[in-house]
Amino acid sequence: MTTAYVHGYTERESRRLSDQAQTLAELLHTGTAPRQGARVLEAGCGTGAQTPYLLEAEPTAHITAVDVSRDSLERARERLDGHPDEERVAFVHADLFDLPFAAGSFDHVFVCFVLEHLAAPVAALATLRHLLRPGGTITAIEGDHASALFHPRSAHAEEAIAALVRVQADAGGDALIGRRLQPLLEKAGFSDVAVEPRTVYADATRPELVQGFVRETFVPMVESARGAALRAGITTPERWRAGIADLEATAADGGTFHYTFFRAGATNPTTAAAQDRNSRT
Amino acid sequence: MTTAYVHGYTERESRRLSDQAQTLAELLHTGTAPRQGARVLEAGCGTGAQTPYLLEAEPTAHITAVDVSRDSLERARERLDGHPDEERVAFVHADLFDLPFAAGSFDHVFVCFVLEHLAAPVAALATLRHLLRPGGTITAIEGDHASALFHPRSAHAEEAIAALVRVQADAGGDALIGRRLQPLLEKAGFSDVAVEPRTVYADATRPELVQGFVRETFVPMVESARGAALRAGITTPERWRAGIADLEATAADGGTFHYTFFRAGATNPTTAAAQDRNSRT
Repeated sequence: MTTAYVHGYTERESRRLSDQAQTLAELLHTGTAPRQGARVLEAGCGTGAQTPYLLEAEPTAHITAVDVSRDSLERARERLDGHPDEERVAFVHADLFDLPFAAGSFDHVFVCFVLEHLAAPVAALATLRHLLRPGGTITAIEGDHASALFHPRSAHAEEAIAALVRVQADAGGDALIGRRLQPLLEKAGFSDVAVEPRTVYADATRPELVQGFVRETFVPMVESARGAALRAGITTPERWRAGIADLEATAADGGTFHYTFFRAGATNPTTAAAQDRNSRT
Repeated sequence: MTTAYVHGYTERESRRLSDQAQTLAELLHTGTAPRQGARVLEAGCGTGAQTPYLLEAEPTAHITAVDVSRDSLERARERLDGHPDEERVAFVHADLFDLPFAAGSFDHVFVCFVLEHLAAPVAALATLRHLLRPGGTITAIEGDHASALFHPRSAHAEEAIAALVRVQADAGGDALIGRRLQPLLEKAGFSDVAVEPRTVYADATRPELVQGFVRETFVPMVESARGAALRAGITTPERWRAGIADLEATAADGGTFHYTFFRAGATNPTTAAAQDRNSRT
C-alpha cells in the first residue's frame, strides 16, 4: 500500500530534507513534553533528517527509526554516525504496514512527512496505533501545498505546485493532507486529537527563512517533481522553468512566502471500549 | 480612489463584522504594548467592530475613528453608546485620502480589513504615514482568501471564494492582499516593517471557532458577495448555493477549516533622510 516516494532519492533531495529539518526544527519539534525513557517509534524516518531533532526533543528516549528504503536508512545511519546520542537510535528496515513489533511496544510514535505519500493513511495510522501501549501518544506532522501563498503572484508558479500535487496524487498520495489530520486520526481510533497549524512566513525582513525555507526547502521540493511531471505530460520544460523562476522570484527583495504545516497530537485510548467508540474504520 | 465596499452595508453584515471581531479579538489584537495616552487613528473603522478591542488594547489612548460611510459611523456610534470608555473615541466622517488632520497628528494608526478594499493601498498607507509623528507606528491587519483551506475539499466552495475574490478585484480591491503587506508598507516609506501570520484553525475539537469563525464569519462573508457575483455573471444561483452548502459542510463533524490573517507593524522613520531612503513610491 506504500506508494513511490515522489521526491526521489537523490543526493540533492537528501540535502533538501536536511536543510528543511534545520530551518523547521524549532517550528515543528516544540510543544510536547519529553517522555522519560520512552520507547519511541519514528515511522518512515527516510534519510533521518528529523531524527537528530527527535533525539533532542526526547533526551532520554530510545528511538526505533523505521523506513521502507534501504538506501534512505543507510543515509540516516551515516547522518547519525558520531552523534553523541547515536546509541539511543536503532534502525530497522521494514514496511509501515508490516512492522516487526508486538502490539503495545511503544510509548510514542512520531510520523512526519510520511502520511502524505500513502494511499491508505487511516490504515497506516491504525497500524501505528496498535503498536502503542494504551495511553501512548502520537505526533503527526504534515504540510499542505495549497497553503503556499506568495508574492509576486504567478500563474506559472501555481501551475508548478499544482503539478507536484497532481504527481503525488497519481502516485496515491495527497500533498494537501495537512488540513485533514484531525479526521484521519479520529478515524484511526485515536482520542484527544489536537491539531495546530505551524506557519512559516518569510520576507526580506527574515533573510534566514527566505534562504532556508523558500530557496533551500520549498523550491527544491517542487523541483524534485520535474521529471515525473514532464513524463506525465502535466507540464512542458518551458512552463516548468517559468514556474520555478517565478517561485525563486518570491525570494527576492519585496517578495513574500507563506506555508502552513499541521502538527497533530493524539492518544491511543486506554480502554477497549474507548477504542471501539473512537474507531470508525 | 476609495472603492465600493464589496460586502455591503446590511444589518447581517454588521452582525458578521461584530461576530468576527469577537472571535478574532485575541488573535488580532495581541502583540503590541499599549502606548501611554497615545493619539490613535483608526482609519476605516466601519461599523466599529474592532473599536472596543482597540480601546481595550490601548487603555489610555484617545482614538479618532474615521470612516467614509455615514451609515457605518452611525452604527459605530451606537455600538459604543454606553461603553465605559466611549469618551475616549471621537468619530469623524472623512475619506481616507482627504483626512482633516495635520501632519504628525497621531502616535499610532490602526487599519484593519480596509486596505483590501482600496485601489491604491500604497498611496493610502503613505497618506496615513504623513499623519503620524516621526517615530509613530502603524498596525495593519488583512486577510488573504487564498489561505482558506478546508476539508472536505470542494470545487464548488473554491469557486464561490474565487467569485468573491473576483468581485472584489473588479471593484478595485484585493482579497489576497495579506501576503503583500510587507512590500506595501516598505513602498509607503515605513521602516521596521514586521509581518506576522495569525492563523485560525477550526475543527470538531474547537467548536467555538467552528461556530464563531466558519459559520458566523467566513461563510457570511462569502455570502455577502452573492448579489455582485450573480450580477457580474461569475456564478449561477445553483453553483453559488452548492458552494455555500459545501463551505457550511466544512463546519460539520469531521470537517476542518484554516485561514491566515497577516498582522503588520511598522514605524514612520524619524528623519527625512530615512523617509526618503525608505520611500519608493
